[in-house]
Formats: sequence, structure tokens, C-alpha cells
Amino acid sequence: MFRNFKTVERIVFGRGCFNQLNDILAEQRTDRRPCVVFLVDDVFIRHPLKERLPLHDQDLLIWVNVDDEPKTRYVDQLTDQVRRAMADKKMDLPAGVIGIGGGSTMDLSKAVSLMLTNKGSSADYQGWDLIRNPAVYHAAVPTLSGTGAEVSRTTVLTGPQKKLGINSDYTVFDQVVLDPEMIADVPAQQRFYTGMDCYIHCVESLTGTYLNTFSQAYGEKSLELCRKVFLEGGPESDDQLMMASFFGGMSIAYSQVGVCHALSYGLSFVLGVHHGIGNSIVFDYLEEFYPEGVAEFREMLTRQQITLPRGVVADASDEQIEKMVDVALILVPLWENALGEQWERIMTRERIRDLYKRM
Amino acid sequence: MFRNFKTVERIVFGRGCFNQLNDILAEQRTDRRPCVVFLVDDVFIRHPLKERLPLHDQDLLIWVNVDDEPKTRYVDQLTDQVRRAMADKKMDLPAGVIGIGGGSTMDLSKAVSLMLTNKGSSADYQGWDLIRNPAVYHAAVPTLSGTGAEVSRTTVLTGPQKKLGINSDYTVFDQVVLDPEMIADVPAQQRFYTGMDCYIHCVESLTGTYLNTFSQAYGEKSLELCRKVFLEGGPESDDQLMMASFFGGMSIAYSQVGVCHALSYGLSFVLGVHHGIGNSIVFDYLEEFYPEGVAEFREMLTRQQITLPRGVVADASDEQIEKMVDVALILVPLWENALGEQWERIMTRERIRDLYKRM
Repeated sequence: MFRNFKTVERIVFGRGCFNQLNDILAEQRTDRRPCVVFLVDDVFIRHPLKERLPLHDQDLLIWVNVDDEPKTRYVDQLTDQVRRAMADKKMDLPAGVIGIGGGSTMDLSKAVSLMLTNKGSSADYQGWDLIRNPAVYHAAVPTLSGTGAEVSRTTVLTGPQKKLGINSDYTVFDQVVLDPEMIADVPAQQRFYTGMDCYIHCVESLTGTYLNTFSQAYGEKSLELCRKVFLEGGPESDDQLMMASFFGGMSIAYSQVGVCHALSYGLSFVLGVHHGIGNSIVFDYLEEFYPEGVAEFREMLTRQQITLPRGVVADASDEQIEKMVDVALILVPLWENALGEQWERIMTRERIRDLYKRM
Repeated sequence: MFRNFKTVERIVFGRGCFNQLNDILAEQRTDRRPCVVFLVDDVFIRHPLKERLPLHDQDLLIWVNVDDEPKTRYVDQLTDQVRRAMADKKMDLPAGVIGIGGGSTMDLSKAVSLMLTNKGSSADYQGWDLIRNPAVYHAAVPTLSGTGAEVSRTTVLTGPQKKLGINSDYTVFDQVVLDPEMIADVPAQQRFYTGMDCYIHCVESLTGTYLNTFSQAYGEKSLELCRKVFLEGGPESDDQLMMASFFGGMSIAYSQVGVCHALSYGLSFVLGVHHGIGNSIVFDYLEEFYPEGVAEFREMLTRQQITLPRGVVADASDEQIEKMVDVALILVPLWENALGEQWERIMTRERIRDLYKRM
């Protein structure tokens, strides 16, 4: 049984294509549902981008804060805020939810668009295919590239019990607007760590047991583009990084991430380390699993003059470390992809604990 | 202004995934519209595939003949046949139209699914964005790889006046079933010529003036896969060729084909030469435009032990040659992509005529 996977239905790519967002949204606005909700990363509050948002009278602009990674509580709160605003306007639902930002902002937008049409808390839907009703129309404008959130069928959330995505065909965006100009101003460190999310999940996908030719074609090209961006550079770098991220996301369609993502989830859940940087911290200790990938990653670190944080787990309590191990161990498909069906024999609690303690 | 391009919404890839077609179609069948129309290449009439078609009681199986390339007249005739069958069953429309075959069969399926909901003759819609109403649900199962028809927004038809596609977002399939086992039995020559359609349109796209990073990423990977298939070979060849075709089709999203396709259209229109072989015949004379591509193509010819037909235009009348030139010259976007905005200065009637006369 192969996944019949859902793609993003509409894609526009090109320098300056952000200017087409107003026309794109016009097709979604109706007399009954004229209002669009913009969820925008609050780093743009004082940025010229603010003036370029195609806001109409009825629209709702919500600045989202992603200093912490998206939590189910925050999703529920944003959903309530949108619901109340709609009720005030005597509308049932918005015409759409548009996420403008990096992976966290895109994930918040996916989650809010899902929760507007599905009852209860977003924490109830962390898992695989638990969503019952289609989301409202949702679109993304990435302003950071690497996570692949623009094409994935997940929205990764930290809930009361676990860090786990809402994995569903309904999670997939209806539209993405890929404008390389949007990522031109990203600070070098953030650009690197987010790019490494892409690089690392491609390495995990390409060396995994789930791989097929579809995922391989996307993953190999994504890696090649990552190499161009982080080992060579050049005027096309932003375009290439945006495509690397898109292809990296597509490569997960028939594969999975692996050891690094599993361990990185534990780190994020317990210590609040961000996903991109968390992956980079973890990956540097995974030479035994991904020897070539780790060697090339270190070359990229050097070329990009990035110094990895060390000793992030040094002050963690035993209890915290056990919790990290728990969070990592839940992610069965990741382990199975990385190490095969017998993964539990290879990756024991002790081994995970030892890995964490070195970080 | 960048194209906001429509993707195929659902994709399943994998050896044996054809077996999932019944489940996939179950989601489309309704009480009001329970009937699925299968348009299947008649080469399969006595093939075991026939027994594997997931036919239900009400379904319509139509064997299509693609000895000639799809004509608007044939599309209109097939559409009438489906309409009459639906009327007999007291249904307004089928639940879907499924094309099982190569590029021609897929194009027929796209065209019939469009014409079931749009009035008049399919010849009225040859051009760009002339279709008014969405098609009925339509899916493809390619049994030949290379054309990219499985992902493109066109259905190439030969009408009374011209060979030109129905280019529309509504043309795009809702679903493709990419099962590499389906192309295992293709005769070597046909496999080669159809594969070269992919190889050649990638060369045209990558050397064209319309290219951007999106199309480049897809085109480069597609070429690389073509090289693996036709210069190296190996057990993964069918999987790779299927992905090459898919990527090749995607690479056209923001680019265009070029000189070879333009000339090949003229050859097909006047002499009825099939698209794949027509492209190969033409490409061999285009060294001045695509020097590296033509050199590699000749290496593939040698490795695959293919002998190109020669002298196909030798018996053509002057009138026929002038018609070929006319048909080729209509294709403005192709010339503009290949040679830039000033293409008319470079590619005169005389030069096209001379090229044809050499073939």
C-alpha cells in the first residue's frame, strides 16, 4: 500500500510574485466570507513588508510570536481569537488563513485553518490522520526556507504530553507563494540553521529504509541545491534555497526523517531548543549513523563561519533527560526508517541517553 | 506576472500501486454518478492488464486507438459515445474518466473529461485558457513514460487547422497513478522515442530564455535520470524513467519547449509522424541550436541500438512543406523561449523550410 499523497494545489514561484497575493486571494473571497486572516511573524511589525500586505477592510491581521516553537495552547488561543472576530463580523468562517513567516508561522497557520473546522483542542489531533473535516482555505508565503513546511502534510506542535505533528491530507496548504526576495534579509545564522533542517532531513531520507525512486529524485536534487547554497553561494542562492526546501519537503512524501529529527524533538520538547538549531546540534554527534552527511555538514559550518552551541544538555536534570528519551522514543516511524524494523535492538534507552549527555 | 500553476492533486507512486486504483475510484463514485469511464489503449485488448481493470457493473470500458495521434474529431466522437451511454443509464455525467496508456491516451482522456462539461467541438478550445467549465474528475495511469502528459496542463490535439493543445488549468489530471511495473513491457523502440520526448523537452527548457530556478531544478534532475536510463541502465530504470517523465513535465511549468518541438509539430500535422519519433528525427538536425544535447542524444541512440528513420520529408510536396512551415511558425511561445523576442529575425520561413528538406 503506497501513500496516495496530496500535493499543494497551486504554486507560484518567482522574484516578486508576492505582489500577486492580492489577486490570488480575490478568488477566495466571497460575499458570505469576504474576510482573510493574515498570521504574520511579528519580526515584520516594523518591516516594510507590513505595507505590502494586501489587507482589505474586513481582514484580520494577527502578529504571531514564534520565539517559542508552536504550542497547541497557542493554536487554540489563536483559533478562539479568529472565531470571536468572525462572530463580531457575523461571519461563520474566514475566506482563508494566510501564513507569512518561517516554518513555525506556517505551522500555526495550518493548525488554525484546521481547528476552525474541527472541534476541541489541537492537542486532540496530534498524530496521524485524526482530523475529520477539511480545513478552511490556507496559503503560505515562506520568509525562511528549509523546513519544508510549505509542502508537508504536518504541522508540528508541542502539546502538554508530546511534540508531534497534526499529520493529515487536510493539513497541506492549498496555495504556496514562493518568492525568493522574501528570504533575502534573513540573518545568516537563522538562514543556516533553517537550511540545515532541509539538508539533514534529505540525508535522513536518502539513507533511510523507506526510500523509493520518487523520494530519492527529490531528495538528491534538494541536497545538490543545499550544496550550491552553503558550499558555493552566488546570486541565485535565495532561489536555490527556496527550491531546496520545496524539494526536501516533497522528498518526505515517501520517506521519513531519521535519528537526528527524533533526538532533536526530545531536545525541543524539554529544553525549548528551536528545531533548526536543535537538528544542527544533534547532527554533529551522529557521525556513526550518517558519516558522509556529517562530514559535509561540518564543511558547511566552516564555510558559513557558524559556531555550534555546545553543552546545551549539561545543566539538564536526570528527569529532564529521561523525558527527552521518552519523547524521542515515541517517534517509531522515524526510527524504523533510519534503522529498520529491528530498530529497538539497535537504539536502546541507554544509547539515546548517552547521546543526549554528550550534547 | 508569474504563472500560479495548478498541480496534479493526488499522486501515488510505487511498484504495484495500480492495485490501489479501485480504492482510489471508490472515493469518486456517488449514488448519482456511480459510473467510471475507462479509456484504455487498445494494445491491451489481449493483455493481462485487461483482467486487472477495476470495472464495476455500470462502468464504461472504451478501447481507444492511437495509431494516429489524437484528433479533435476523435475526441468529439468519444465524448458523444460517453454522453449517449450516460443518457442510456439516465445519468448526467460519469464519476470520472480514467486514461490508461501513453501520452496519446492520456491526452484523449483529458480532452474527453473537458468536453463532457464544455459545449461545442474540442477544436474550439485549441489554444490557451479557452475552457470555461471544470472537467469531470480525471485520472491517468501511464503505461509509457516520457511525454509528461501525466502532469501537463495541455492535451495536444490535431484539429482541422492546426496541431495545438487545449491548454488550461482544468486540463490537469486530478490523480496520477505512477506504477513503474506498467511500463515494463514497452517495446524498446517505443520506450526510446517516448523517453527522448522527455530528454529533448528538458534540453529545450534548460537552454531556453524562459527558464527560472524552479524549472531548472526539475529539468536538471529529469535529464540526469534520462542519462541513467539510456546511458547506464539497471534494475531501477523503469522507476527512473517514470520519475524523469514526471520531472520533465514539471519543468515545463515555468519554461517552454523549443525549436525541436515546433518543427516536430509540423512534421506530425502534415505527415502524421508520431510525436516521440518526430522529435527524435528533428533533433538530430539541430546541432547548431543544441550542440551538447544533440551529441548526448546520439550517444544514447548508439547505446540503445536505435536507427533513426531518414528521408521522411523526401516525398513531401512543396505545398506540404509550406504547410509544415505554417504549423511550426504558429508556435510563438516555443520560438520565443528558444531564440528570444527577436526570434523572427533568426528563424525565417526559408530556414525552417531548409531544415525540413534535410529530414
